[in-house]
Amino acid sequence: MRLVTYATPAGARPAAVVAGDRLLDLGGIAGSLTELLSSDAALDAARAAVASADADSLLVVDAADVLAPVVPGKILCLGYNYRGHVPDGVDPTANDPEYPDVFVKTSNTLAGPNDAVVIPPGATDVDYEGEVAVVIGRRAQRVSLEDALDHVGGYTILNDVSDRAWQRRQSQWALGKCSDGFAPLGPWVVTPDEAPDPQDLLVEVVRDGVVTVSQSTSTTIFSVAYVIHHISQVLTLEPGDIVSTGTPQKLPAAQDAHRPLADGDEVTVRIAGLGELTTRFVASQESAA
Amino acid sequence: MRLVTYATPAGARPAAVVAGDRLLDLGGIAGSLTELLSSDAALDAARAAVASADADSLLVVDAADVLAPVVPGKILCLGYNYRGHVPDGVDPTANDPEYPDVFVKTSNTLAGPNDAVVIPPGATDVDYEGEVAVVIGRRAQRVSLEDALDHVGGYTILNDVSDRAWQRRQSQWALGKCSDGFAPLGPWVVTPDEAPDPQDLLVEVVRDGVVTVSQSTSTTIFSVAYVIHHISQVLTLEPGDIVSTGTPQKLPAAQDAHRPLADGDEVTVRIAGLGELTTRFVASQESAA
Repeated sequence: MRLVTYATPAGARPAAVVAGDRLLDLGGIAGSLTELLSSDAALDAARAAVASADADSLLVVDAADVLAPVVPGKILCLGYNYRGHVPDGVDPTANDPEYPDVFVKTSNTLAGPNDAVVIPPGATDVDYEGEVAVVIGRRAQRVSLEDALDHVGGYTILNDVSDRAWQRRQSQWALGKCSDGFAPLGPWVVTPDEAPDPQDLLVEVVRDGVVTVSQSTSTTIFSVAYVIHHISQVLTLEPGDIVSTGTPQKLPAAQDAHRPLADGDEVTVRIAGLGELTTRFVASQESAA
Repeated sequence: MRLVTYATPAGARPAAVVAGDRLLDLGGIAGSLTELLSSDAALDAARAAVASADADSLLVVDAADVLAPVVPGKILCLGYNYRGHVPDGVDPTANDPEYPDVFVKTSNTLAGPNDAVVIPPGATDVDYEGEVAVVIGRRAQRVSLEDALDHVGGYTILNDVSDRAWQRRQSQWALGKCSDGFAPLGPWVVTPDEAPDPQDLLVEVVRDGVVTVSQSTSTTIFSVAYVIHHISQVLTLEPGDIVSTGTPQKLPAAQDAHRPLADGDEVTVRIAGLGELTTRFVASQESAA
């Protein structure tokens, strides 16, 4: 299933995308998408509802009412996780780090798939990172590598928006990663039974019409299963938590042509089998204090 | 006021510590301590209630029922923020960094003031850090240095428990800082009107009866006001958020004698005017996956 959260006058509700962009409300089955993803019974009921849905029960929902699919208790991200291109004869794994470099995006970074990202006053070097984001379905505490994927509720897309100037100013990246709205997420969660192999996804970014990133998750150093196994040794992952799997490097031409994001820029993260997340960037109307 | 959150069969409620260790319930004034700290009217009502409290209205609450004072949306911490000792004639500010090094502890780290910290299976180098923690009272978004302290709801104590082995394994410290329960907080929040000057607090740590840290916040590089001003330029601080102000270095003898925390160790963080936070460390009963 492709699952979303959408706004209603009575609050956010989960739904399935069943035909084009029409939704089947699942609020009668679970109170939230996180609750739905964490319950096999609820998922079974949702699948049955989708299978038997008639056209009259479907909703046409305005894109602006589609929210971030989950409200994660934690957003954990990876630094360097895609291998770069190396000449023939060079071992591509030669520079692999021993451990994933994990960092945190705070709760204020979460944004819906249709929210514009405000470039903070004074920010001079805001950049995008298109990533496959794992939504945890079942609590993961010290899970083995073999069992790790059983804890995945689904896959979605994260733009790990980053202020490179702040990121360079300290050893820790928090202030470069945690501005309000710097984690657009969505538009939907694809459950593992319908998602492609997470280690064979083409991740692309299109900026203002130009493809700037194009690399498969087959070139990641740490697989989804390994990352969940690894992190869960140290801390407990809960349903709804996000584990984002890092960004590929920009293509060489895009690196050369790169300029910081500015008012009106549009960035689409496109991941085969997971959909597209398009984010518009707008300048802040305020000034720094 | 000294304010706590305590457990009742009907849920957590705020209270004031009014006489020794007796509590005046404030659940009729605000639904949570965060709500109380964010409302001048609620704080005024709480002060009036404390002033007119009679002995019969006071509760004797078991220490185990005193919870973490707030459930922060974000826990932001500082790395290096206390100047080290330098010989006479050397400028103590010579090595000051230009910016505070901010990092994040995730929501799963929060622990109550009487919770034991479980040393995770396989953790070989767990350490303590005694810190003055600021509780945000009023939303802070791009606040000036002059106005920054108006956004403080109060002060409490954080033990920024850290797994040094994990901290050394990556450039980012998340896995060294974010094990479950690695942020014991409390026991109470002292409101600014009753707290001492935050830049003149003696921070001490006592480990198994020996004073291992003893340094005043007068030796910090970045003041509380500056840190709030600074962080609020980048992200919005919300009521209940914690900004912890970094740890002093261990005393030289304690550095020499240091060994990782082990089952049964007890660490007290004692801050003049803010109280004491004592944490017991216990070995995990589980093994790594």
